[in-house]
Amino acid sequence: MEKFSKLCVELGDRSYPIFIGDGLLQSSELLASHIHGKQVLVVTNETIAPLYLSSLVDGLSAYSIETLILPDGEIHKNIEVLNTIFDTLLAKKYNRAATLIALGGGVIGDMTGFAAACYQRGINFCQIPTTLLAQVDSSVGGKTAVNHRLGKNMIGAFYQPQCVIIDTSLLGTLPDREFRAGLAEVIKYGLIADVEFFHWIEKNISKLLARDPDALCFAIEKSCANKAKIVEKDEHENGVRAILNLGHTFGHAIETFQSYKGWLHGEAVAIGIIMAAELSSLLGWINQADVCRIRKILAFCDLPAVAPKDMSSKIFLELMSVDKKALDGSLRFVLLRSIGVATVTSEIKPDLLMKVI
Amino acid sequence: MEKFSKLCVELGDRSYPIFIGDGLLQSSELLASHIHGKQVLVVTNETIAPLYLSSLVDGLSAYSIETLILPDGEIHKNIEVLNTIFDTLLAKKYNRAATLIALGGGVIGDMTGFAAACYQRGINFCQIPTTLLAQVDSSVGGKTAVNHRLGKNMIGAFYQPQCVIIDTSLLGTLPDREFRAGLAEVIKYGLIADVEFFHWIEKNISKLLARDPDALCFAIEKSCANKAKIVEKDEHENGVRAILNLGHTFGHAIETFQSYKGWLHGEAVAIGIIMAAELSSLLGWINQADVCRIRKILAFCDLPAVAPKDMSSKIFLELMSVDKKALDGSLRFVLLRSIGVATVTSEIKPDLLMKVI
Repeated sequence: MEKFSKLCVELGDRSYPIFIGDGLLQSSELLASHIHGKQVLVVTNETIAPLYLSSLVDGLSAYSIETLILPDGEIHKNIEVLNTIFDTLLAKKYNRAATLIALGGGVIGDMTGFAAACYQRGINFCQIPTTLLAQVDSSVGGKTAVNHRLGKNMIGAFYQPQCVIIDTSLLGTLPDREFRAGLAEVIKYGLIADVEFFHWIEKNISKLLARDPDALCFAIEKSCANKAKIVEKDEHENGVRAILNLGHTFGHAIETFQSYKGWLHGEAVAIGIIMAAELSSLLGWINQADVCRIRKILAFCDLPAVAPKDMSSKIFLELMSVDKKALDGSLRFVLLRSIGVATVTSEIKPDLLMKVI
Repeated sequence: MEKFSKLCVELGDRSYPIFIGDGLLQSSELLASHIHGKQVLVVTNETIAPLYLSSLVDGLSAYSIETLILPDGEIHKNIEVLNTIFDTLLAKKYNRAATLIALGGGVIGDMTGFAAACYQRGINFCQIPTTLLAQVDSSVGGKTAVNHRLGKNMIGAFYQPQCVIIDTSLLGTLPDREFRAGLAEVIKYGLIADVEFFHWIEKNISKLLARDPDALCFAIEKSCANKAKIVEKDEHENGVRAILNLGHTFGHAIETFQSYKGWLHGEAVAIGIIMAAELSSLLGWINQADVCRIRKILAFCDLPAVAPKDMSSKIFLELMSVDKKALDGSLRFVLLRSIGVATVTSEIKPDLLMKVI
């Protein structure tokens, strides 16, 4: 077996390990130790299937295994496509001891996890994230969901996997644009919870962009460790977990406006992070030098910095008001007290908000 | 406020009360104390709405309240109708602090509960069951689901309500056939866990059939107390909770065969109970005198005793094999060790099973 790091998300009887290493897809014994029944369904998409599916399936010959290949893309993360997972499970008579394996990015992970949460009121599932975004964010923490045409991730569940297996070698085939979008979430962890990590990213951003294996492993591990720590404190997002959504209130509004067909999630989040930073600066919490550092590191990753021109402030407010972070009518924002310290507030005056939008 | 009984389902931070009494729908303060946000959506069906909706809504004038009236019947308990609940919640901008209220029978309770489990990954909900079946069974214990064309309750969640309010006066408008179907579940509690209660039912069945208020209240309270005790031991049905499904493996197969358009759930369960009793007798666990007592009490309620004639044993086995109780290929049955003591077994020889089918 390859060398790997192991983190644990400590959630009582819902605790699980995250394995991070180069070539872990080949280490089927790692995965097998988290599969309890005999029936396994691997859910993946048409982009990932030709690259990695057979390699995964070959290692699981001891199981009764089926595969389901979904269309690729955020626009397919909906209740109709989710239903095709249920159709497959029922047509093939999968029972409550079955295990789902999500092999793909955030869309596959979120949908497969939600299918696992709902099928026969909950079966086991494992995450094998194939994008940087999924490896550092969506595969960890148990948020599963599908989108609704009126809002992103509106239908879902908190449902933890049995394990997360992060094979950094899978990033070798990730398109550059998606890789850079994933870096927005890596940078997010530095900003919300880990100033030292932010400094490390600033110093090592060229290595990361060159996909240097050691730098990548370190960044993924740090990101997952930061996320795990926050999720452990607040699994169901009743409090501190909301800081993981830095940039997401603005970002989700942009994604909804573009019907999930414009900017990638990480790109929309990058814009949202800049808007949150500017808002934090208007409140006097961080200074313009901090905002510049944030703009600079995101620009270095070629991430967008400005919301779509045809998105009026009225539309922005309208779309943000259905965001899950909006509580009883008041919009809530994740803002920065300083680099490395985030806070959630609903005390934003409309005129300040309009300046940023 | 009316006189009422209070039971508690003890599940740690998911504990909740069950209130049972005559006229509780008028006691809006009881319900209001379990609504935390400002937004309330009452989900009901076209049969119940003209009878009780305005009386419920009138008591909740302090809230921002909307109502959604769904078509009535088990065939509408599907993912498409579930989606109309999400559409309403999103169109009206319901947030994470919102509360759903299920006013109806098992179909409304199961779908509304599942919608609450999934909307924004979980919002609060309250159950106001209007049928005997829902009052003694489906509203208690947190099982929520929709049906799939290949199996009943296949898509769902374990998700507990904030409270259950059982107003026995609502049974006044319940059609006789549905009332009798509900009695099958009442009898079930005696059979699986409470021999004294079974004796009480035998003695008081005429009073129950006449809907005597005191007898009804007692039977509902006993049923809920028995169910609560079992759910507390095994919320997610990894063990003992399965005994609540006495008669359900056979019953679900019948319902699926009839596409939920033939016998009512309680009627199908009554047939299933008789099949389970006969199977228990073939194993020598109970004697034919016990089986006769069971047949007699169900017959007294005018409940059916024989599966549909056109349902071959092959079809029976086929449909039972996708039941949630089937684990890794082996069918599992809830059988009776004696009246008042149930057990789950997968050690049933095919020839015995065929005799019963």
